[in-house]
Amino acid sequence: MSFVSSLQAAWRRSDSLLCVGLDPDPVRFPGALSGRSDAIYAFCRAIVDATAEHVCAFKPQIAYFASQRAEDQLEALIAHIHEQHPGIPVILDAKRGDIGSTAEHYAREAFERYRADAVTVNPYMGFDSIEPYLGYGERGVILLCRTSNAGGSELQSLQITDPEEGTAGGGASNAPRTATPGATARAERLYERVARLAAGPWNRNGQIGLVVGATFPEELRRVREIVAEMPILVPGIGAQGGDIDATVAAGATRDGFGMIVNSSRAILYADSGEGFAGAAADAARATRDALRVAVAKRLASSRPPAQHG
Amino acid sequence: MSFVSSLQAAWRRSDSLLCVGLDPDPVRFPGALSGRSDAIYAFCRAIVDATAEHVCAFKPQIAYFASQRAEDQLEALIAHIHEQHPGIPVILDAKRGDIGSTAEHYAREAFERYRADAVTVNPYMGFDSIEPYLGYGERGVILLCRTSNAGGSELQSLQITDPEEGTAGGGASNAPRTATPGATARAERLYERVARLAAGPWNRNGQIGLVVGATFPEELRRVREIVAEMPILVPGIGAQGGDIDATVAAGATRDGFGMIVNSSRAILYADSGEGFAGAAADAARATRDALRVAVAKRLASSRPPAQHG
Repeated sequence: MSFVSSLQAAWRRSDSLLCVGLDPDPVRFPGALSGRSDAIYAFCRAIVDATAEHVCAFKPQIAYFASQRAEDQLEALIAHIHEQHPGIPVILDAKRGDIGSTAEHYAREAFERYRADAVTVNPYMGFDSIEPYLGYGERGVILLCRTSNAGGSELQSLQITDPEEGTAGGGASNAPRTATPGATARAERLYERVARLAAGPWNRNGQIGLVVGATFPEELRRVREIVAEMPILVPGIGAQGGDIDATVAAGATRDGFGMIVNSSRAILYADSGEGFAGAAADAARATRDALRVAVAKRLASSRPPAQHG
Repeated sequence: MSFVSSLQAAWRRSDSLLCVGLDPDPVRFPGALSGRSDAIYAFCRAIVDATAEHVCAFKPQIAYFASQRAEDQLEALIAHIHEQHPGIPVILDAKRGDIGSTAEHYAREAFERYRADAVTVNPYMGFDSIEPYLGYGERGVILLCRTSNAGGSELQSLQITDPEEGTAGGGASNAPRTATPGATARAERLYERVARLAAGPWNRNGQIGLVVGATFPEELRRVREIVAEMPILVPGIGAQGGDIDATVAAGATRDGFGMIVNSSRAILYADSGEGFAGAAADAARATRDALRVAVAKRLASSRPPAQHG
């Protein structure tokens, strides 16, 4: 099954937009795990098993494993998710980006070695740096668009004036129509251009998604206008301060799905003691419920008003 | 010693602008290495030992190790370079880029785990995604600016119109002057903005460099105007087709240094048989010599003409 299909199934089965981000930092682990050579795996596995029923996806962040020389534990963790929680997509957060010949190796790393269902990729190097990932059956590629950090504005929000040119995707004329025909004529922000390329000429197999931070709801709304039903991975709620209601109002599709709302630290470290997994489950359930409430509000507000006169 | 200082010393000691890129692809190794569990390390070590006298730097590309589950061989390779060829800087080509808390883990990966002297980083997420690398003593950060691949133009060459705003670097007014005062008022390309931020407010410790591909000499010339003496890592000669004379004419500093000109495949795979290391040494020497000739031409052409009248 393709990444997007399995994600759509996971949204409906779990009735959840929540993705738990797996950013394991050993200095924050409960004492009982200290000194264990498999502490990272053990911690993450406990989080996964405790929260699986509340999520639509898991997102391990590879930097936290690489800095600890724990690639083997990342492999084991993803294998565990696939075996024990089949159908929950695993998004490897790696933000890779390189020329084609190198990108082939990164794609192999993400999809063959780690068996991820999707990987995050940086679009700065253009389509030929993205294309190798599209060659892997129907795995997903989630491109950075408008990131949740403050510095993201420095380049991503720059105003650009070039008209769209024919692109590596085969020319805009063959591209699927986006929700904003005619947008090529107006000035736009860099992140809007990324969204338009991602929804159009770059999206050859329909398996591209975007990263847009919860910290900028107006920009999330703008991206949703551009990309129609495309999945959007939304970091930035919880520790980074994004508001759940505003995020869902801006980013959900008309059916109340379309978003993968990530929370990492607020769930992983909900409790620093032996009860960390139970506390994580509680935090995940509460976040899932807050997302459900926000979706209900969103759907209610977009319902057409009763006819008058 | 800082990255930039050790690079300057290496340029002068070797009289070479050549960097050998270590992109080990086992399918291209000579038969004698096949089946060895340490084939990647053995291949790269032989290349390093054969070419060290001809280079100013080595640049291992982490994707080639990660796709082969060979992180331990990358650690051993960099340790070997430091021990056997002290003073030759090692640039880890990883093109990382993430929010600050994650970037700290990538910095730890590059500088503590792998003991790289510098790491390549993607600037799309702005200064707060770069800052954690600047905290590591005086290690180097080499930012993608204008990459060598065709798709690089899609975003990097977009025309932008925003005036420069106060940035995370503390405001443009405190920034070191670049070679183009007044440039804030004119339209510029995205890669030019990256170059100007990198040379100005972002370069807090003077250890930032840029990646500009040899395949676009006019754009390399433009970046050199903006960044004055900053080191520029130049991929794209050899297999990617960049011209050495044009590259050096566009990118060298007035003293004939300033560039780290990378060649990977043309050196690593100069011969596919048992004589691969000797062939790599010959190819490295020939490339170093071609770079020296190009530098001599560049210096001769920039000498002021004799006075007349």
